[in-house]
Amino acid sequence: MSRNQVRAAVMAGPEKPIEVRGFPPPRMEPGGVLLRTVYSEVCGTDVHLYHGRLAGVPYPIIPGHVSVGIVEEVIPPAAGQEVLTPLGQPVRRGDLVTFLDVHETCGRCWTCLVAKAATRCPQRRVYGITYSALEGLLGGWSEKIYLKPGVLIMHLPDGLSAEKFIAGGCGLPTGFHAVERAGIRLGDTVVVQGAGPVGLSACFFARLAGARRVIVIGAPRLRLDMALSLGADEAVDLADYPSPEGRVELIRELTAGRGADVTIEASGAPSAVAEGMRMTRDAGTYVVVGQYTDNGPVEINPHLDINRKHLDIRGCWGTEFTHLYRATDLLAIRGRDAPYEQAISRFYSLDECQQALLDVEHLRVIKAVIKP
Amino acid sequence: MSRNQVRAAVMAGPEKPIEVRGFPPPRMEPGGVLLRTVYSEVCGTDVHLYHGRLAGVPYPIIPGHVSVGIVEEVIPPAAGQEVLTPLGQPVRRGDLVTFLDVHETCGRCWTCLVAKAATRCPQRRVYGITYSALEGLLGGWSEKIYLKPGVLIMHLPDGLSAEKFIAGGCGLPTGFHAVERAGIRLGDTVVVQGAGPVGLSACFFARLAGARRVIVIGAPRLRLDMALSLGADEAVDLADYPSPEGRVELIRELTAGRGADVTIEASGAPSAVAEGMRMTRDAGTYVVVGQYTDNGPVEINPHLDINRKHLDIRGCWGTEFTHLYRATDLLAIRGRDAPYEQAISRFYSLDECQQALLDVEHLRVIKAVIKP
Amino acid sequence: MSRNQVRAAVMAGPEKPIEVRGFPPPRMEPGGVLLRTVYSEVCGTDVHLYHGRLAGVPYPIIPGHVSVGIVEEVIPPAAGQEVLTPLGQPVRRGDLVTFLDVHETCGRCWTCLVAKAATRCPQRRVYGITYSALEGLLGGWSEKIYLKPGVLIMHLPDGLSAEKFIAGGCGLPTGFHAVERAGIRLGDTVVVQGAGPVGLSACFFARLAGARRVIVIGAPRLRLDMALSLGADEAVDLADYPSPEGRVELIRELTAGRGADVTIEASGAPSAVAEGMRMTRDAGTYVVVGQYTDNGPVEINPHLDINRKHLDIRGCWGTEFTHLYRATDLLAIRGRDAPYEQAISRFYSLDECQQALLDVEHLRVIKAVIKP
Amino acid sequence: MSRNQVRAAVMAGPEKPIEVRGFPPPRMEPGGVLLRTVYSEVCGTDVHLYHGRLAGVPYPIIPGHVSVGIVEEVIPPAAGQEVLTPLGQPVRRGDLVTFLDVHETCGRCWTCLVAKAATRCPQRRVYGITYSALEGLLGGWSEKIYLKPGVLIMHLPDGLSAEKFIAGGCGLPTGFHAVERAGIRLGDTVVVQGAGPVGLSACFFARLAGARRVIVIGAPRLRLDMALSLGADEAVDLADYPSPEGRVELIRELTAGRGADVTIEASGAPSAVAEGMRMTRDAGTYVVVGQYTDNGPVEINPHLDINRKHLDIRGCWGTEFTHLYRATDLLAIRGRDAPYEQAISRFYSLDECQQALLDVEHLRVIKAVIKP
Repeated sequence: MSRNQVRAAVMAGPEKPIEVRGFPPPRMEPGGVLLRTVYSEVCGTDVHLYHGRLAGVPYPIIPGHVSVGIVEEVIPPAAGQEVLTPLGQPVRRGDLVTFLDVHETCGRCWTCLVAKAATRCPQRRVYGITYSALEGLLGGWSEKIYLKPGVLIMHLPDGLSAEKFIAGGCGLPTGFHAVERAGIRLGDTVVVQGAGPVGLSACFFARLAGARRVIVIGAPRLRLDMALSLGADEAVDLADYPSPEGRVELIRELTAGRGADVTIEASGAPSAVAEGMRMTRDAGTYVVVGQYTDNGPVEINPHLDINRKHLDIRGCWGTEFTHLYRATDLLAIRGRDAPYEQAISRFYSLDECQQALLDVEHLRVIKAVIKP
Repeated sequence: MSRNQVRAAVMAGPEKPIEVRGFPPPRMEPGGVLLRTVYSEVCGTDVHLYHGRLAGVPYPIIPGHVSVGIVEEVIPPAAGQEVLTPLGQPVRRGDLVTFLDVHETCGRCWTCLVAKAATRCPQRRVYGITYSALEGLLGGWSEKIYLKPGVLIMHLPDGLSAEKFIAGGCGLPTGFHAVERAGIRLGDTVVVQGAGPVGLSACFFARLAGARRVIVIGAPRLRLDMALSLGADEAVDLADYPSPEGRVELIRELTAGRGADVTIEASGAPSAVAEGMRMTRDAGTYVVVGQYTDNGPVEINPHLDINRKHLDIRGCWGTEFTHLYRATDLLAIRGRDAPYEQAISRFYSLDECQQALLDVEHLRVIKAVIKP
Repeated sequence: MSRNQVRAAVMAGPEKPIEVRGFPPPRMEPGGVLLRTVYSEVCGTDVHLYHGRLAGVPYPIIPGHVSVGIVEEVIPPAAGQEVLTPLGQPVRRGDLVTFLDVHETCGRCWTCLVAKAATRCPQRRVYGITYSALEGLLGGWSEKIYLKPGVLIMHLPDGLSAEKFIAGGCGLPTGFHAVERAGIRLGDTVVVQGAGPVGLSACFFARLAGARRVIVIGAPRLRLDMALSLGADEAVDLADYPSPEGRVELIRELTAGRGADVTIEASGAPSAVAEGMRMTRDAGTYVVVGQYTDNGPVEINPHLDINRKHLDIRGCWGTEFTHLYRATDLLAIRGRDAPYEQAISRFYSLDECQQALLDVEHLRVIKAVIKP
Repeated sequence: MSRNQVRAAVMAGPEKPIEVRGFPPPRMEPGGVLLRTVYSEVCGTDVHLYHGRLAGVPYPIIPGHVSVGIVEEVIPPAAGQEVLTPLGQPVRRGDLVTFLDVHETCGRCWTCLVAKAATRCPQRRVYGITYSALEGLLGGWSEKIYLKPGVLIMHLPDGLSAEKFIAGGCGLPTGFHAVERAGIRLGDTVVVQGAGPVGLSACFFARLAGARRVIVIGAPRLRLDMALSLGADEAVDLADYPSPEGRVELIRELTAGRGADVTIEASGAPSAVAEGMRMTRDAGTYVVVGQYTDNGPVEINPHLDINRKHLDIRGCWGTEFTHLYRATDLLAIRGRDAPYEQAISRFYSLDECQQALLDVEHLRVIKAVIKP
């Protein structure tokens, strides 16, 4: 590998071993920004990518969608102009920043303008997922990341360390979005199904949003303890309550027989969806955010689970800049005592990405962080 | 049967033949009102009652929940006072009125006061469904109906005939509630699954609510024609599109490939729920109002049908006074040209109630009206 | 005063000195509950009552609308029945309870059923305000309080002392309602105008609801310090910023030039309303909850302050059981470290109520508590 | 004026006579579109522009923000690409189109991304208002209009004539936005203050949105008759009800003493705002959309008009593509019988623009249309 080359971990295709390759430095465009990667992350979606469970992925790819880095180079968009964040702050060499992995939401189509469903814009592309390695350094498992012109950049707020931010990772904006979508009212009882990164952040933000009690259901114990330290008031271990019926019964007992006001599914198991409906009270709200890949069907009873229950069910897909911004801002301000960084079980070098994937898949870690 | 006795059709138990019995005139309480029944109706719930598909029904019952009648007797609640409607109008002998079938919503429990989910109040009881014939003339298939103190009464608005009102029947407030719950925005494309009484009123109110296009899916042709004359712009006959995939495909074609902004399920078939999710556009809204009895489960795919689709699904149970009031008021004012009364396929005497049930069950009629 | 008589402080009319009178014990009705008053409170409304600034008050009255007491006597509503709270818990002798001061909301009129605006129900009556002393012990400045049948009762939650509860007083449900009406989103910057009891609770609940920063504006210093200890992040002293323009300017500086996402008016000064509109960002939300009596008009500019600003302005009147319940519940659970009881500047005996009114009027106290 | 020159009417500055000038044909950019103007319009904002009542206008300008034209030239954005509308349809020579006058909403700032208040984006610019004539043919009072790359274009729907569309003009999306913001519920009574183009479209869309009754208040008779033919059920002539108190009293009489569920201010008079608050029922909604320029202050009573009334007040600024699209689509589909084109009192040539302004200012016309 030549001196100038950039090392990046590449997923060449489904089930193909992750390999580190050398790339030429990116050809910078006006408005483009080059980051030296500080940290990137491994999330459940990366495991799905590895197993080929997402459609339309342009392998080979450099995975890693949420990352944090230091600005190494900025090309002015035009003479005398600077690259600005949405907050209007200039992006300059040496700044510690993150960025919204979703790029090229067009803002000009029926979905963006009329449906106002930007996360479903057909034009959107995602760093580390829908950009090919052939298109450049567009993923976080790399020494450097090239931020194309227009990528939405955000400085890490004062007092928020890169470690604490990446410990939240993509779970931060995703969990935030789920809580926003839940419309939690002050004093609601909230159940979170799943104690992975999305579930952990859902606990954190549900607590911040004024829940009277946050109950997390998941496994293993390590993750549940993390949930308790981030905002959950109670943790239900799947080992102690192995059956869905038993868990539904327990939630009813904990809620005066009524069920949760709000339940947030962040587990990824299709069966959790039927279970979650049954844990939620009549006229309550159920948010489905964990089903990011197709793990098959589930049987529900539309009379009992939806109609008679007068239930609100809300799917929750993707994130927008507002979620990344508000989640990160709140983590800095209201999360001072939240030991998010303890969720990092291990740092992995670029050469250890395969191991990181395995550890995530087998729940051996809470958060696997890539340190290129 | 003695001179003074009141004749009423009684459902003695599941699958037992409907029989006409004589009842003594009710013992009137202060605030009570006695109606001479003009019309009552047969709805799908009555068929479920007949087959014993609802839990906790106190057979024998006098069916008939939505009815219209003429006031025959009013007992003042106290000296110098009158029985008043929620609009503040006195209820007097000779008035043509209807009433909310749901009674005894307590207004004092956690469900009513904190969840604000009055249709799920555990105290609520329903004329013609959860009152026993042993408790009195508390159903519409009867020469007279006793309105207990506190029943919410409404005068039929000027210009609205008893025939037109009962042709809508319980589909009016139920369809109205579904449309309210759908939150239709001006210019939305709305699909209604099912062309029974609820589906017909959903078409009527969806059109009134500003839909750019209302598409009804159902059968038989008779009902579809009725839907077209009440507000649907397009009718899809199940005979022409026998497969769910074909229907989903058709709706996509009719909506520039996107799916409906809003879909309202009013069919009662569990399989319609999966189909309806797939007919609805990304970030659209799906209301489930037709699953009033347990007809079994359905398989859905939580990734494709909810999460990735960013879908809103809203169960819709029961009705409140506001739905009856607004639906009836709008029928009178904005439905002048809507030929609702043509939905009445036949009038049945008390002695013909069994036949009426059969005709409803086998979709031989649109609306079966009881004329005691 | 005879042995059995109950002592109560009476406001005989506007500007008439408060006097303590003896009343016969109440004639208990089925479902009625008698409380021995532990604490009642003096709030700004009591000052308005004293000066005759509210219309339709049936003087003489026993003031004191929010109170806490110990159950001394309960008359069963019917043989074998108990008086129940909305949570379904029986009310028994010795229980420490509070109750919703608003009573007789009818639940049967157009306002309740169609507009769903229960706090504007024409039938509603309020303990300590719209009940006359001639009707009984229906106010809190009394040794005993008679809870008429149907009054909505709530047990103080475990771990919540009577002192802490009454320190919040009517500001608790009122501030809660304002925050609910504000629809605060996670990460919003919230300004609260006014540091009286309503403003203090608005700070407390705004913080709980996920505000990134709560800024209180008020005086004197004592109250601002209290606000800081209850949840405000920043306090603006009117002494330091005496002009409305200066305060608007300051809020803009503190919010990157944009203004607050949400502003809550809890000051009672009409001029605060124009000021508050100007402090709020474009497309933000402004809640007006402090204008409980007519203190005259204010001049606004509808182009600049409303239309061009795309502002949401929300009046907020009265409280319902849900507000009392959720506010008290959250105070118990999430307010463990909130030193609410320090807001009690002084306890007053029944004979000192006149003094208490004066102290409240002249802002010499934060919270004046009556201990009969 | 040379052969190739484009004639356009220019407003050189406040109170300066409108003059027709010749401009060179625009220098077309990739993605740019040239229209031959079919119609443009004169609206109240143009009168404000003429009197210099808007801040920051870059005189000289070519007025005319909403227009309709035929595509004369299209420059592909890139080789092999076409200019597309948000609906995905190519824009081609000969097409009859309109376009959103608001351009350059950035979609990248805090206001766009976090506040989601696109109509308040600081970058937005408006054809005919905030573009200078020195920048090109960027207003409708011109033989040709240059649509810069990125302008949001919409084909006129089949069956909708250019005359009918321009008769609605900018009142269409503005009135639509106001009705959307009002959140009209099926069966609401709606009052519209003002019978100018915005008020007329507010009547049209309020009716479509399911109002039980639409009452318009305005003058002169000509406009009221137009309102009645577009959807109003009742018209109140200012000549018959000259005092605000009389009008408030009348609305109360027409609404069973309660006031309107929803009131929409579309008059432009500051005094209308206080009046409108008083016409609206307790817990109703008041939309302020008519105050597009600063006509001075108004006195309101925050206790009576906002707080005690529990009123929702919603400012409504600007329009987005969704409003133009949905309004135009609905006009084509649901407005077939609405005689919008009768609102055009007169067509004016470019040389008659001064006269058109005068006629609009003095209410001598309903809609003045420019036919270059």
